[in-house]
Amino acid sequence: MKNFSISFPTEIWFGKNQINNLGRLIESYGSKVLFTYGGGSIKKNGVYDRVVKILEKKKLQFYELSGIQPNPRIESVREGIKICKDNNLDFILAVGGGSVIDCSKTIACGFYYDGDPWDFLLAKVRPQKALPLGVILTISATGTETNGGAVISNTKTQQKLTLMSPILKPKFAILDPTYTMTVPAYYTAAGIADTMSHAFEQYFSSVQNTYLQDRLAEAVLKTCVEFGPKALKEPNDYHARSELMWASTLGLNQILGLGKNFGDWATHEIEHELSALYDIAHGIGLAILTPHWMKYVLNDKTIDRFVNLAKNVWGVEESNDKFAMAQESIKRTQEFFKSLEIPTSLKEINIGEENLEKMANRFKKIGLVKKLNNEDVLNILRAAL
Amino acid sequence: MKNFSISFPTEIWFGKNQINNLGRLIESYGSKVLFTYGGGSIKKNGVYDRVVKILEKKKLQFYELSGIQPNPRIESVREGIKICKDNNLDFILAVGGGSVIDCSKTIACGFYYDGDPWDFLLAKVRPQKALPLGVILTISATGTETNGGAVISNTKTQQKLTLMSPILKPKFAILDPTYTMTVPAYYTAAGIADTMSHAFEQYFSSVQNTYLQDRLAEAVLKTCVEFGPKALKEPNDYHARSELMWASTLGLNQILGLGKNFGDWATHEIEHELSALYDIAHGIGLAILTPHWMKYVLNDKTIDRFVNLAKNVWGVEESNDKFAMAQESIKRTQEFFKSLEIPTSLKEINIGEENLEKMANRFKKIGLVKKLNNEDVLNILRAAL
Repeated sequence: MKNFSISFPTEIWFGKNQINNLGRLIESYGSKVLFTYGGGSIKKNGVYDRVVKILEKKKLQFYELSGIQPNPRIESVREGIKICKDNNLDFILAVGGGSVIDCSKTIACGFYYDGDPWDFLLAKVRPQKALPLGVILTISATGTETNGGAVISNTKTQQKLTLMSPILKPKFAILDPTYTMTVPAYYTAAGIADTMSHAFEQYFSSVQNTYLQDRLAEAVLKTCVEFGPKALKEPNDYHARSELMWASTLGLNQILGLGKNFGDWATHEIEHELSALYDIAHGIGLAILTPHWMKYVLNDKTIDRFVNLAKNVWGVEESNDKFAMAQESIKRTQEFFKSLEIPTSLKEINIGEENLEKMANRFKKIGLVKKLNNEDVLNILRAAL
Repeated sequence: MKNFSISFPTEIWFGKNQINNLGRLIESYGSKVLFTYGGGSIKKNGVYDRVVKILEKKKLQFYELSGIQPNPRIESVREGIKICKDNNLDFILAVGGGSVIDCSKTIACGFYYDGDPWDFLLAKVRPQKALPLGVILTISATGTETNGGAVISNTKTQQKLTLMSPILKPKFAILDPTYTMTVPAYYTAAGIADTMSHAFEQYFSSVQNTYLQDRLAEAVLKTCVEFGPKALKEPNDYHARSELMWASTLGLNQILGLGKNFGDWATHEIEHELSALYDIAHGIGLAILTPHWMKYVLNDKTIDRFVNLAKNVWGVEESNDKFAMAQESIKRTQEFFKSLEIPTSLKEINIGEENLEKMANRFKKIGLVKKLNNEDVLNILRAAL
């Protein structure tokens, strides 16, 4: 186990009607609020009205930034910063999924920076200070609700980059599983794949001797395997939705990657290239790529965790043929995604050979489990066609 | 899954030589330090000298409160508060195990209270404010290093009571597994039993539908089962010590009890009566009582988690006879404690019938899995003789 340092300061309010705490929570941080959200699904499911009523009742002044897109754009960040600066706002409330929250995190630190916020993504500057941020999560997927990460896209440069800083961790996160009941099946499935991918990225590691962390990652994976199909079959199954929501938060609050240098993340890096260029749902890209990444990195050094995955998550019977067990675990992973009606090849989402080389050439060395260069990445992308 | 609210704000510094961060960490909170510790084992293993050197190098003024006993006494708390008040101290550094840390937490809130600190334990007052507290953990057991709980004994009233408040959570916790290598086998074993008991208290619950939390508790239990014997066999096994240390922290940072009303805790309540009267090691008392509590609460309603425990932790083969599986899981639990050379009956630690009724009569209704009255408690204590 490697050394690590961590804290999980975000106040989590999990369960039905936890939004009742919203007014009091915001008041303890500020009084002039930027209220951010996406394409308007929160207007359909009633969350928007509930939030507005609370803000009005508490006499909290608020400004809206709406229309934040999946794979959120740096333009939305700039727009949000401008509203905050123009009106001297002191709090951000993000209501939505990963895109809305990531955009809001970048606004939060951009508020205190005079340059262009894309500089944070390019790692030209580090966030020094950030507006306090509270979130109401409406889709189980990214885990961003309690971590310090944000992924932002730049359509001009065709880049999708990640910003990480502990000061971006939200002050509070309201996690009400009922809000996820109206998420369409396709995005519910993409969210499950996203959560599982986070567990995989941290499970597979060049670091050995992390028994407890490995069992925790398996717990998150098993939860997705057990309750993913249930939530798709019965979207209003509160138990299934609550398990998936809590799994998605633990999937990326970093607890699974402690003592393991926080994980591999090569699959995520490759997927970010895909969704930067094709604007696909992140979870779908991950589900397509993961089994091919697994096949590519399976070797004598990495086999033990594949065997554990087979035994402990997929219930594969133990045998002396470790490679057969490992291959079976990869097969089951892909079959599970398929059972959620997720596409399992790039072709199915209309991506062909045309840009694969260009994408692969962006990489020099990624990953920890096995260092991948641009040729390796190209091989993985081609296998995923 | 029940609603819950939680945060884990303690900054954790886990691993070898993390003490190197101590000076900087203290400086960010205060400059006049109460340095608390126990019977002097930290003088033998070099931790004391290391701490003093750091405090001196940083020119941090410090006062010592030493000799804090296992089952820490309210007298030590009063003494610590007096030192802090007399010298206007602004930070507490606790170096030791659960007793030193719990005593220090109570000093931290007692500093801001004019009455007697035992009032906090009697729940006459709630902590409103507390001195910032940092801890260096030297034994894996209680999990107090990142939670808001403290257990204090009063020899005059023969009471051992618990104080809980989120404001008592330490600001930082330095968890260096090498410090636990010099813990004697008996206390290493008691610590493992303590960690497992915390997992059991949260695992068994009247709340159903907590799949993910159950798997997390099993992960902590499996870690103890896997690495407990290794640490006893080879005290300097860094991997084993690190797994046990991280398991003990996760065992009671509350993550295992989320959505379950935080667990049962009847065994702990009964044990606190035992160690209040007999001053035994807490973990030993828990190891003796747990299997008897299990047998007592096993019924049609509670059986499923016992079956899961059998399958997922003890590797018992699945069968149609659920009661046989459940009983096997209890048997294996007791056998495991025995394998750690922990006494498995009260008689072995020289406790007889003499005070059992008196202890049992302190209880009206405890526990959630099954509500226990004084007669139930007496039955459990007698079974443990």
